[in-house]
Amino acid sequence: MKAHVYVTLKRTVLDAQGQTVADALKRMQYQGVEDVRQGKYFLLTLANGMAQNAAQAEVERIAREVLTNPVIEEFTYRLEA
Amino acid sequence: MKAHVYVTLKRTVLDAQGQTVADALKRMQYQGVEDVRQGKYFLLTLANGMAQNAAQAEVERIAREVLTNPVIEEFTYRLEA
Repeated sequence: MKAHVYVTLKRTVLDAQGQTVADALKRMQYQGVEDVRQGKYFLLTLANGMAQNAAQAEVERIAREVLTNPVIEEFTYRLEA
Repeated sequence: MKAHVYVTLKRTVLDAQGQTVADALKRMQYQGVEDVRQGKYFLLTLANGMAQNAAQAEVERIAREVLTNPVIEEFTYRLEA
C-alpha cells in the first residue's frame, strides 16, 4: 500500500517560495496563473498486508508527529491500495 | 480553477532526503513504513473562466518547462474545478 502525504504552509503563513515562483512565471510571460503555493510531498511505501485501518492510523500519526510542523503547516493524505 | 502539480525524482535517481526520513522513522519506532520518496508539491490558482483545455495545456507547459528538472525529475498533475 502507498500513502501520499501533502504538507503545505497554513493559509495564514506567508509562502515566500510560492510567491517567488508566481513572480517568475509572470515575468516569463506564462498566462493565467494567479497564485502559487509550494509544499512538500511524501510518498510512503507501507508494509504489505497492512490493514486499511492500521495504515490510516499510522500514516496520520507520522504525518502529524514527524512530517508536519504544526505551528505553521498542515497536511492532507491519501491512501492507495 | 486549481492545479495540483507533484514533482518527484525519477525512480532511478537516489532520493537522499526521502531515505533520511525513512531511516529516521525506523529509528523512532514507527511501524510499517518500508520506503519514503520526497518530492515537491505546487498548488497553482488559475484565472477564473479559463477553459479546461487551455488550463491543461498551460499547466503542463509550466510543469515541464519551469517546475521540473527533466534530467532527474518527473511530474504529475491534477486539475480541480
